[in-house]
Amino acid sequence: MPDARLDLVNRSFKLAARPVGLPKRSDWLYDQSPVPSPAEGEVLVKVRYISLDPAMRGWMNEGKSYIRPVAIGEVMRAGGLGEVIASRDANFPVGSQVSGSFGVQAYATARGAELSRVDPSIAPLPVWLNALGMPGMTGYFGLLDVGQPKAGETVVVSAAAGAVGQVVGQVAKIIGCKVVGIAGGPEKCDFVVNELGFDACIDYKRGPIFPGLAKHCPEGVDVFFDNVGGDMLDAILARIRMRARIVICGAISQYNTTTGIQGPKNYLSLLMNRARMEGIVVFDWADRYPEAIAAISGWIADGRYGSREDIVPGLEAFPETLLKLFRGENFGKLIIEVV
Amino acid sequence: MPDARLDLVNRSFKLAARPVGLPKRSDWLYDQSPVPSPAEGEVLVKVRYISLDPAMRGWMNEGKSYIRPVAIGEVMRAGGLGEVIASRDANFPVGSQVSGSFGVQAYATARGAELSRVDPSIAPLPVWLNALGMPGMTGYFGLLDVGQPKAGETVVVSAAAGAVGQVVGQVAKIIGCKVVGIAGGPEKCDFVVNELGFDACIDYKRGPIFPGLAKHCPEGVDVFFDNVGGDMLDAILARIRMRARIVICGAISQYNTTTGIQGPKNYLSLLMNRARMEGIVVFDWADRYPEAIAAISGWIADGRYGSREDIVPGLEAFPETLLKLFRGENFGKLIIEVV
Repeated sequence: MPDARLDLVNRSFKLAARPVGLPKRSDWLYDQSPVPSPAEGEVLVKVRYISLDPAMRGWMNEGKSYIRPVAIGEVMRAGGLGEVIASRDANFPVGSQVSGSFGVQAYATARGAELSRVDPSIAPLPVWLNALGMPGMTGYFGLLDVGQPKAGETVVVSAAAGAVGQVVGQVAKIIGCKVVGIAGGPEKCDFVVNELGFDACIDYKRGPIFPGLAKHCPEGVDVFFDNVGGDMLDAILARIRMRARIVICGAISQYNTTTGIQGPKNYLSLLMNRARMEGIVVFDWADRYPEAIAAISGWIADGRYGSREDIVPGLEAFPETLLKLFRGENFGKLIIEVV
Repeated sequence: MPDARLDLVNRSFKLAARPVGLPKRSDWLYDQSPVPSPAEGEVLVKVRYISLDPAMRGWMNEGKSYIRPVAIGEVMRAGGLGEVIASRDANFPVGSQVSGSFGVQAYATARGAELSRVDPSIAPLPVWLNALGMPGMTGYFGLLDVGQPKAGETVVVSAAAGAVGQVVGQVAKIIGCKVVGIAGGPEKCDFVVNELGFDACIDYKRGPIFPGLAKHCPEGVDVFFDNVGGDMLDAILARIRMRARIVICGAISQYNTTTGIQGPKNYLSLLMNRARMEGIVVFDWADRYPEAIAAISGWIADGRYGSREDIVPGLEAFPETLLKLFRGENFGKLIIEVV
């Protein structure tokens, strides 16, 4: 039987240049090439959904980080979901639904050890890139293990309508915290309050967030889960309570700077308040992902947990779609559907 | 019998104005007034030594902090040592050697509950404002409880020849760490290496500290105990190891800024390295001071612990002497001897 794959054409975005500031179209190379055949122990995945994450901007830079940079000429790294269409690993037969680091491309080969199974009967596939994927794991462990909120405490999360923010706020509510989100625009604020059950949301596009913090966190902030950095982090630092915990998950306001990172000038509030600021990288909890997936999928099943994805069709839309993250234009977890 | 105290004249420095930048002479009011009589439950202390600390600069500012600001017209707050010369508290008879928050003055009244006994047979009096006083407590608990160094780890401390730096470095050596100090000038560096036993010291006055960090901390920094802030903190952030702990004790480089605090622009290294930055205020360990005093005085008795004080004679020298701290001109714990 002839191999139908030989007729398939892969499409991918490769890193063409290291961006200065926001990635430009010319920083990407759109490439078409034959679909590779899986080697022994590998599978071939037809990628269906590609996760777009703020962290991708960091991977495009040179230099030491928590993960090696994407090389020039390499397919851009990205998490994704797809279906095994050819298999040389008996654990993942053709038809398996899997997630993995497939890159920004339509087809990917991967070793079985690099794959996770996803179960569409638990939640629709895109949710496996959101609440049941990396953002879910990040929010769950970052909040619970590092933020260590206690029932009754006030938790604030920035980028509240984003992938990680949704998780942090909902998990914090479930364990009995007061939750205040920070998001851009009335629609996102309505969503996190009315659909996700946050206690309040501050619209940073309306002006400085400090009055909102004073109003909604009258006793101060016990846990801040920061995805944004910049002025927002400083405003929170000015309002933390004694022994507050600030979880540094990201700093999307700073990733495209061309003038240098803005350090938190109010960091001495950590001293005044005996507070802590700690960074997290989700991979550290890899052996406990099943615990978080079990918890969150249980809440989804109970109807206690909602999620929202912002799904953009078309691999070719990748360069422009990625920018939505840095402009705060995505509404929920940003995903490309490969069509 | 006539009360000889009626003949005594108190001398004090009161806060005349809130300084902008470095405190000027005109920010102080030198005052002479009759020595007060102790009320029931109080003692009158003839102050002999006054502790000069970087934190004093913060107490001169308005606004919320970990302790209320010194009011305009109030005697400047300062720790001190002295002798009880009149007593209406049977627990502290005349002749008792005591420490307390006596202020920048020659005589002070205080309640017994506000006093600690000092024992000159354990260590000379000035050491009770240094290794056995607040700096000792700060360094001991800040390092051990918050920095949590393990034997074999690399500990870096800024202002290494200062009061807190001496403690941090020596305690870290005693528990088996590699210790690198940062200090200004070859004399201070020689002192911490050759007299206090640090493994190395980087002279920040010779230029950027980064080459010294690379040389002396080839595997990176596990614990940084920061008394300085500014560029020094950023240089360390660029060189921390995974799960490093940064203890924020002070930021003397920033206390007199008139252009705004310099936030650590490399703070995202906390994320990359899953590291922690945490502030401390020594008062939180007040009920455990005896533990630290027992440990440090034991090491002093064993000859394993050295301390150095920079004692300046004359209460009247206070305004100019305080500035030595901010210019890095003190060599060891800065103390005024009231003569």
